[in-house]
Amino acid sequence: MQKVSSKDVNIRPSFLRTLMDRVADRMIPYQWETLNDLVPDAAPSYCIRNLKAAAGLIDAPHGGCVFQDSDLAKWIEAASYMLVWRDDPETEKHIDYAVELMEKAQTGDGYLNTYYQLTDVTKRFTNLRDNHELYCAGHMLEAACAYYEATGKRKLLDIMSRYVDLIDATFGPEENKKHGYPGHEEIELALVKLYSITRDEKHLRLAKYFIDERGSAAQYFDREAEQRASSYAWERSVYAKNVYYQAGSPVREQFQAIGHAVRQVYLLIGVAEVARETGDETLRTVCDNMWKNITRRQMYITGAVGQTAFGEAFTFDFDLPNDTVYGETCASIAMFFLCQSMIRLRPLGEYGDVMDKMLYNGTISGMNLEGDRFFYVNPLECIPERSKKSQIIAHIKPERQKWFGCACCPPNLARMIANLPSSVFMAEKNTLYANLFTCCDVKTKLEGGSVSLSADTRYPLDGVMKFEIKESFDGFVLALRLPRWVRSYTLTVNGASPETVMDEGYLYINDLKKGDVILYDLQMPVSTVSANPRVSQDAGLVAVKRGPMVYCLEEKDNGDMLSNLSIDPENGFEAEFKQDKLGGIVEISCPAKRISLNGWDEYELYAQDRKPVCEDCTARFVPYYAWNNRGKGEMRVWVRTHGKER
Amino acid sequence: MQKVSSKDVNIRPSFLRTLMDRVADRMIPYQWETLNDLVPDAAPSYCIRNLKAAAGLIDAPHGGCVFQDSDLAKWIEAASYMLVWRDDPETEKHIDYAVELMEKAQTGDGYLNTYYQLTDVTKRFTNLRDNHELYCAGHMLEAACAYYEATGKRKLLDIMSRYVDLIDATFGPEENKKHGYPGHEEIELALVKLYSITRDEKHLRLAKYFIDERGSAAQYFDREAEQRASSYAWERSVYAKNVYYQAGSPVREQFQAIGHAVRQVYLLIGVAEVARETGDETLRTVCDNMWKNITRRQMYITGAVGQTAFGEAFTFDFDLPNDTVYGETCASIAMFFLCQSMIRLRPLGEYGDVMDKMLYNGTISGMNLEGDRFFYVNPLECIPERSKKSQIIAHIKPERQKWFGCACCPPNLARMIANLPSSVFMAEKNTLYANLFTCCDVKTKLEGGSVSLSADTRYPLDGVMKFEIKESFDGFVLALRLPRWVRSYTLTVNGASPETVMDEGYLYINDLKKGDVILYDLQMPVSTVSANPRVSQDAGLVAVKRGPMVYCLEEKDNGDMLSNLSIDPENGFEAEFKQDKLGGIVEISCPAKRISLNGWDEYELYAQDRKPVCEDCTARFVPYYAWNNRGKGEMRVWVRTHGKER
Repeated sequence: MQKVSSKDVNIRPSFLRTLMDRVADRMIPYQWETLNDLVPDAAPSYCIRNLKAAAGLIDAPHGGCVFQDSDLAKWIEAASYMLVWRDDPETEKHIDYAVELMEKAQTGDGYLNTYYQLTDVTKRFTNLRDNHELYCAGHMLEAACAYYEATGKRKLLDIMSRYVDLIDATFGPEENKKHGYPGHEEIELALVKLYSITRDEKHLRLAKYFIDERGSAAQYFDREAEQRASSYAWERSVYAKNVYYQAGSPVREQFQAIGHAVRQVYLLIGVAEVARETGDETLRTVCDNMWKNITRRQMYITGAVGQTAFGEAFTFDFDLPNDTVYGETCASIAMFFLCQSMIRLRPLGEYGDVMDKMLYNGTISGMNLEGDRFFYVNPLECIPERSKKSQIIAHIKPERQKWFGCACCPPNLARMIANLPSSVFMAEKNTLYANLFTCCDVKTKLEGGSVSLSADTRYPLDGVMKFEIKESFDGFVLALRLPRWVRSYTLTVNGASPETVMDEGYLYINDLKKGDVILYDLQMPVSTVSANPRVSQDAGLVAVKRGPMVYCLEEKDNGDMLSNLSIDPENGFEAEFKQDKLGGIVEISCPAKRISLNGWDEYELYAQDRKPVCEDCTARFVPYYAWNNRGKGEMRVWVRTHGKER
Repeated sequence: MQKVSSKDVNIRPSFLRTLMDRVADRMIPYQWETLNDLVPDAAPSYCIRNLKAAAGLIDAPHGGCVFQDSDLAKWIEAASYMLVWRDDPETEKHIDYAVELMEKAQTGDGYLNTYYQLTDVTKRFTNLRDNHELYCAGHMLEAACAYYEATGKRKLLDIMSRYVDLIDATFGPEENKKHGYPGHEEIELALVKLYSITRDEKHLRLAKYFIDERGSAAQYFDREAEQRASSYAWERSVYAKNVYYQAGSPVREQFQAIGHAVRQVYLLIGVAEVARETGDETLRTVCDNMWKNITRRQMYITGAVGQTAFGEAFTFDFDLPNDTVYGETCASIAMFFLCQSMIRLRPLGEYGDVMDKMLYNGTISGMNLEGDRFFYVNPLECIPERSKKSQIIAHIKPERQKWFGCACCPPNLARMIANLPSSVFMAEKNTLYANLFTCCDVKTKLEGGSVSLSADTRYPLDGVMKFEIKESFDGFVLALRLPRWVRSYTLTVNGASPETVMDEGYLYINDLKKGDVILYDLQMPVSTVSANPRVSQDAGLVAVKRGPMVYCLEEKDNGDMLSNLSIDPENGFEAEFKQDKLGGIVEISCPAKRISLNGWDEYELYAQDRKPVCEDCTARFVPYYAWNNRGKGEMRVWVRTHGKER
């Protein structure tokens, strides 16, 4: 399956376009300022300063984390994607400036990493596990590919190709090379991106090498640590365990997501990409098993992954605590990318469903409606006083932040959103797959000819879509994803029911000709979701959903102590579009009960044989992504239930 | 109010006697072995080795924690209490041997602390905050008082009096002394114990000084840390914050429990003791406010206190997470001791009620039925797989341990239980207060004369009690605690209803004469308890209780996935005595529903609009203290509810 280039897709005003414009108008300029340390009261980035220092233009020590370079890389990548759909000479100038600095900073043999260059470059490639060296290289590589594809400018691609040559000369199966692999996976998938441009087998081979060497019996990280004489305490911590880095066993033998969530998912993307390019069936099976494990046993209903703050990591199957959850924004973004790699392996509607889940919930919850405040952690329950006073959930911030000392998430969001045009469709032979639903025009070349169509919809606000075929050819097939949440839908072509084939989550429509009008109407009632009874944390609770969106209760609409609210799903819900609320949302409401404080003294902790007194009230739900845009307050996704059936 | 000496109280076979015998038969000999590092596979104690080394008898470095000496101290204290009610020449020999080692180890100027003596004694008294020096002194002092009172042997008391003289010469308001106070409170209460023997005002004054200096504006710990040039990271942690040590403000201004739980409660005991001895009203008010805050806003239904593993600390009002709870055994034991100090300030039945709560739940849950395995942490919910795989609750062990690197809890349990005879009664003027209910004989002197009586009861298995007056005098008053959980009771003297005065939780009975027989029958039905709706974690849940005992569900009786069980309290319960189960318990059962796994694929995480399918089943509850005596499995105190009223 091929990507449909974002150059072929024009996204018109819509939910997605609003996100994209927010990124272009606010996030990309704002993040350039942060990278230059120009935002007052925000954690300093040091990115540009580090680069200038490495280039010898100023004298400054390295600032920030060991992986600081990657923030700039992700920003360049995001800005490059944006340049495809928006003229922005100012931003392009900024990128060129950064690229120039990189060129100056790069050493004669191709090395480029400001942390090592500004500390002790002789130590380079001696601590792959902890110091994110190949991770930074991976992100810069992605940036280089994106900038080249957006503008045709080769300079950054050339810089990074030289660096990749050095990495290739350093790592590999040959006896004179190091048999290492990155502590934070990323470069594997980036190398396949590079390969898609260069078609240089060396690039694919190196990606495959990093995957195949990972977790081999020789345990590279342990040997590295011995040579470094790393501190005893650190070596006893979770951060010294090979499984934390998905290196406890060979990748081909792995079947359960474990360790650091972003690392795990980035690794899988690399595995899927290599599997696709090489046709390697074992690697494909690893992806299938891992996909199943993550999405069907370890994923929150919002799409959050990584259940624990200890190491930002997966824990185990069916363990989904809502109050102590980690759910890093980056991990959900990684899942969004993984969906695309999985679709390219095999067109299953399930992959698109999860893309939707990520897109409308756990990724964009990471930013506010203005695009200048960010969550690193995305809880399913927030009680601000607990976050403040209970260390065990100190990672759960009750308000989005301006920036972070470790600022991986904001530029990651920017690059995901800026590249949305390339995520809407995919193509295989003569079939155009519609994975995301939004207002857009697409004009692209399939195997049998050119095709062009327009799509109009208010999705995700409702499920009504109109597609008009502007250009077609004999044998053209349109595959429309039928989301799993759909219980009822209609599909007509020019007013009549077409013959369709339903296969693994897609409706395939043949014989579409220029001028054909397709109406696709996905009924979008409010529904409630229960979790598998194996999830101890969600017993007796439901989540409220509509279409792809998960909803939540906020204190602003419902008062505090949200755990006292319960609903009876049998009572039904009302859904109402509110233009002026939270940027335009469908608000959901239903009758509810609230355990009353009446009769409870505030110095009375427990009462014996006292029947709970409940007050009738109305529960109001807003989309999860939009929470915390009206000040600090409680939030809750899973709600208690009452009623005869419960 | 006066204590009634354990020499005056003989506890006959009963629930309490079983505990005492377990301590005498198993825990005291077992713990002596651990202190001598003789138990295979248990964490080494080093206690005796450290003392030998400090005495110059062997050459060995200091082993274990900085507060290791206190383990031995608590063991001596426990063993001393035991010697009051059991002849045990072997144990007495062990104590004498340890005392001899202490005498040899004590320096010329009275100092005695193996950690500093075996590392660098010139550093003594330079890190009160972190190194538990005065805490260890406090425990040794308590041991000295107990051993003296049990045996009349003065040697340890003399050793410790010399040490106290040194401490008194080192700390105080005078300009030439250090204006410090302990990082871990304990010595305050111990000094009042010493004062109760010596009546030397110096001892009471020093206790009061440590309390009054604590949290003063000069902030001793900060100045100490500056002088030590303590590590930056440590000084930024929770362990460097004055509030963590109840030193954020002067003690007289404190009203909310905060920081390390055991420290907080030990401080309060010291404050209550000083308040009683000095009549200081401000200190009494501190105790009253703190008591209210802890017991009515921060205490689990099991009596556990300290909600978070981060620093073993209190968090804030109404925050009572059941799965991440800390609830250190020592903290509940400290609460048990605090109850006694509070009663001595003022006879409120409430204090005895909490004593009961501690005694039958959160303290003895810390040990198994054999007395050789221990919990440090006492959760209200345990899922063994979570404890194993989720770092955030790694502190919650699903099985009791043989011993701990930090082994404060086991000897603390031993000293609490060994001294139970002194906890049953209290005396004031001509009134004998019965706080605990057990089979016993008491013969003691009140102001107006001698009194002797016997008590017979199966309490806490049921609430029927018979008291027989064996010796009395004119004006003798018996005050029987009427627990707050009692809904219905009868009281007769020689078969007729006596005139009684009910006052603040006690029934006062006058004119009792030799031969009088009192029947006191507390109805003990099963009841359910709800938490204040301000406790977000317990919304919609109930706990099952009978008399003073909180019950729990165990996997052994109910299968796993206990969160899927729900009960309807309106359906009633059955209570049945089972002699052969868990050492003899009253088992509680009731009809229940269980969310069924039927229809759920094990690779299906969420289901839309699917009504939960419930199976009827029977829920079986066992007393909380007895959990985890039949292998590893899930446990849960708070249970979901269903039914019309819920």
